[in-house]
Amino acid sequence: MYTIGLDFGTLSGRALLVDTRDGTEVATAVFDYPNGVIDHTMPGTGRPLPPEWALQDPLDYIETIKQTVPAVLKESGVSPDEVVGVGIDFTACTMMPVKADGTPLRALDEWVDNPHAWVKLWKHHASQPQADQINETARQMGESWLNRYGGKISSEWFFSKALQILQEAPAVYHAADRLLEAADWVIWQLSGNETRNACTAGYKAMVQDGHYPSRDYFAALHPEFADVIDSKMSRDFAELGGRAGGLTAEMAAATGLNEGTAVAVANVDAHVTAPAVKATEPGVMVMIMGTSTCHMISGTELKEVDGMCGVVQGGIIPGLFGYEAGQSGVGDIFAWFVDHAVPPEYHDSAATAGLNVHEFLEQEAKKQAVGEHGLLALDWWNGNRSTLVDTNLSGLLIGMTLATRAPDIYRALIEATAYGTREIIEAFEARGIEVKELVAAGGLPEKNYLLRQIYADVTGRPFKLSGSDQAPALGSAMHAAVAAGVYPDIQAAAGKMGKLSDEVISPIPENKAAYDQAVRRIQVAL
Amino acid sequence: MYTIGLDFGTLSGRALLVDTRDGTEVATAVFDYPNGVIDHTMPGTGRPLPPEWALQDPLDYIETIKQTVPAVLKESGVSPDEVVGVGIDFTACTMMPVKADGTPLRALDEWVDNPHAWVKLWKHHASQPQADQINETARQMGESWLNRYGGKISSEWFFSKALQILQEAPAVYHAADRLLEAADWVIWQLSGNETRNACTAGYKAMVQDGHYPSRDYFAALHPEFADVIDSKMSRDFAELGGRAGGLTAEMAAATGLNEGTAVAVANVDAHVTAPAVKATEPGVMVMIMGTSTCHMISGTELKEVDGMCGVVQGGIIPGLFGYEAGQSGVGDIFAWFVDHAVPPEYHDSAATAGLNVHEFLEQEAKKQAVGEHGLLALDWWNGNRSTLVDTNLSGLLIGMTLATRAPDIYRALIEATAYGTREIIEAFEARGIEVKELVAAGGLPEKNYLLRQIYADVTGRPFKLSGSDQAPALGSAMHAAVAAGVYPDIQAAAGKMGKLSDEVISPIPENKAAYDQAVRRIQVAL
Repeated sequence: MYTIGLDFGTLSGRALLVDTRDGTEVATAVFDYPNGVIDHTMPGTGRPLPPEWALQDPLDYIETIKQTVPAVLKESGVSPDEVVGVGIDFTACTMMPVKADGTPLRALDEWVDNPHAWVKLWKHHASQPQADQINETARQMGESWLNRYGGKISSEWFFSKALQILQEAPAVYHAADRLLEAADWVIWQLSGNETRNACTAGYKAMVQDGHYPSRDYFAALHPEFADVIDSKMSRDFAELGGRAGGLTAEMAAATGLNEGTAVAVANVDAHVTAPAVKATEPGVMVMIMGTSTCHMISGTELKEVDGMCGVVQGGIIPGLFGYEAGQSGVGDIFAWFVDHAVPPEYHDSAATAGLNVHEFLEQEAKKQAVGEHGLLALDWWNGNRSTLVDTNLSGLLIGMTLATRAPDIYRALIEATAYGTREIIEAFEARGIEVKELVAAGGLPEKNYLLRQIYADVTGRPFKLSGSDQAPALGSAMHAAVAAGVYPDIQAAAGKMGKLSDEVISPIPENKAAYDQAVRRIQVAL
Repeated sequence: MYTIGLDFGTLSGRALLVDTRDGTEVATAVFDYPNGVIDHTMPGTGRPLPPEWALQDPLDYIETIKQTVPAVLKESGVSPDEVVGVGIDFTACTMMPVKADGTPLRALDEWVDNPHAWVKLWKHHASQPQADQINETARQMGESWLNRYGGKISSEWFFSKALQILQEAPAVYHAADRLLEAADWVIWQLSGNETRNACTAGYKAMVQDGHYPSRDYFAALHPEFADVIDSKMSRDFAELGGRAGGLTAEMAAATGLNEGTAVAVANVDAHVTAPAVKATEPGVMVMIMGTSTCHMISGTELKEVDGMCGVVQGGIIPGLFGYEAGQSGVGDIFAWFVDHAVPPEYHDSAATAGLNVHEFLEQEAKKQAVGEHGLLALDWWNGNRSTLVDTNLSGLLIGMTLATRAPDIYRALIEATAYGTREIIEAFEARGIEVKELVAAGGLPEKNYLLRQIYADVTGRPFKLSGSDQAPALGSAMHAAVAAGVYPDIQAAAGKMGKLSDEVISPIPENKAAYDQAVRRIQVAL
């Protein structure tokens, strides 16, 4: 039996057809969204968008399904009869206004030219004034949920974006019968059922202990916002791995799958990666490493951890508290360095060696002993999410001498991001949430051996790698297998279908000791 | 009437023939030392030198005189009868062992192959163990002179080098009848008289209030060092601008000058620059800016200033206390940045614009308002001389974001060196030594307009530039004029012969206010 995982990214969507017996990835297909990220001008009118806006077109998601699912069926030769389930994961919070029947406002002539009728993509940051109001109001009213999110709600999250619609385009707000995550809307289109997945409800819509913030709180934000939950949302939350419904006749016709094929509850790309790398038990910290890093770990108890992005019961694995934390700059700091601070000499040497500059710097930096470069950096180039929750923080580099060279700084920057992860680990362990090992997914750790060893050495934890380079889609296919009843739960699915690389990087004791000593010396100095 | 100033640098020597009426620079000639800086292998034997060694050949100095003085006479057409004086300035401490008749040990077959028989150049740093011993012993014995040098004697200074000779080559030490500055040895060769100029005696040989450290102190360093002063040096010090003697018949024949032409007491290149830029009164801080910066200022009282390199009565201007301070990295930090941290893009743009990378970065950085880059740097890439006296300190850069670009950092580094000068100014003023204006000499401030404005804005002082690009040689010619009796004192000579550029950079009030505010915010943060 097979399932299909659909991974909806920022610029494209991917389908992955997976053998449920062992997770074998049989076929994959990618479709680039025709409208991509809409952040400069509106499609159709060409009207310019203000700064910090980032929209998507919901019709691109449907087209993705129609293009990629038939493609993987065809490529694999697998019969639709053997495909027992479909699961999806999505960027988040990526939200949209729709009519009662699920029609996106963007699909109606009346609203198509209004930017607020389109999907607000995760990285739409124009809702910062609303986020500020949400935070300030919550602090004034002593809202208990605020600490579950490190004391700060992001402009990226659900109610920041929803409140922006109400404040800036009240007609759109009132025309919208429903406001929901694009992930849940896609499941609605696939299954005919409107669901609200527990993951985004908890991490992005402030649902804690089964409840949204109070009506009074929403009223304090804006009088017309008071009934946002009961008029446009839902208080029913769907567990991850649950069955949202069966594939509709229309979508069956469009995809070539059978009508009634199990459709799993939607999930988030980062969170769905955890079971894909077998991280279904407490103690394993999953790191999705790219331009930034998202850390996820499950625990058996509810704790408030300094600077965490959120804690949600069943947010990653049903039955466990799913914790999320993050480093706001990782790969993008290394990219900044290579693009803006590496002299021609190293670009030339890399070219001569047939390597890219990252690879060449890694090769040079690898020759050094711990501490040899004498540098120390803080990875705050893009602010600091966990544990300080301050976007205004900026980078630090100390220890430069006239003998400092690019590989020294490159290594120091990798170490800085590793120390950033160490800080997060220590924040979790300070609250009794154990972190025994690290499992990384994403292109960054796959490409950089030195980074893996440094993370192991700085954190003192074994460092493992995802065994799949399309882990989110694999995770979605696993949830589809649970929804279809192939496995009783995600733990069982992960045991058979999850994948880790054979490579396990262990801390080198003398390196770990040297990094520990550096930390102690700084603590003493402070 | 004319005088000749001879400026002995690290790689070459220069003669400048000057009209004493107004300082007009009539003719100049440069001679590259045949043996240059001897820091890898010994001339003749080719025997390698240990790290940190830097020697010179005293015969190169004599050859410089023989080559350059006839050249300026010939070029100018000035008659030797019209040349009334010769003055010199030198790097320091650049010292050597000689026989009682002035013959350098290096010129004797018996000693020529021993590196300790040659001149130890100012930047010979292999005497660090001896400097450490000198400092430690002085601290233990509570030597009062130590604070006059910021609490630390350098490996570059006289007794560090002399003690190294005794400890490593006792035979050379005992064969040396005299140990002296190369500057004073050159004067000896010109005039036939051994003198000890007050400037190097005070700044480099720990003479304070007319006295060297005690016999007991020297004995504590090494039993055979106890009588170093009385056996190999002199307790008579010659005032700057004084007449060391008349040109010998032999040197007259070699140069084409008249026998008996006045020969001035030797001086140091940095210190002789002060009168060359008319800085003969208290309140004017002269900065010799190059790879590092040397600050000089005169005061009417003896004070101990934090981190100063030295204070010497008559060390710059007779009758005043001459204070010296320094920043150990300035131009070499900018060079480090351009060579090791500027990406290809800016190298290419500079080439396209027909500028060097420094000029291009300056042009870009100039467009910014104060604080626009959001960066703050500490200029400790090469340690910090004043006010912290710690060679182990290293650089700091904070405030980097993903939007930080090379011109931002370039500007921040210039600002860092300006803040370093501000710290020095504040240390002087805290002890009641007023700093009313800055006068800079050297290639660095001449080339960089932005640097001049930033120094004015950060320090809040008018910033002036030397009017001569061979200020040390001009200063030496001025001392020659005093020694020859053309002027009664250096103040009078400076009034007529000294030169300032017409350009005076005043602080821009809003920039000054912004820099002041930045300092206050840091002080508050600390």
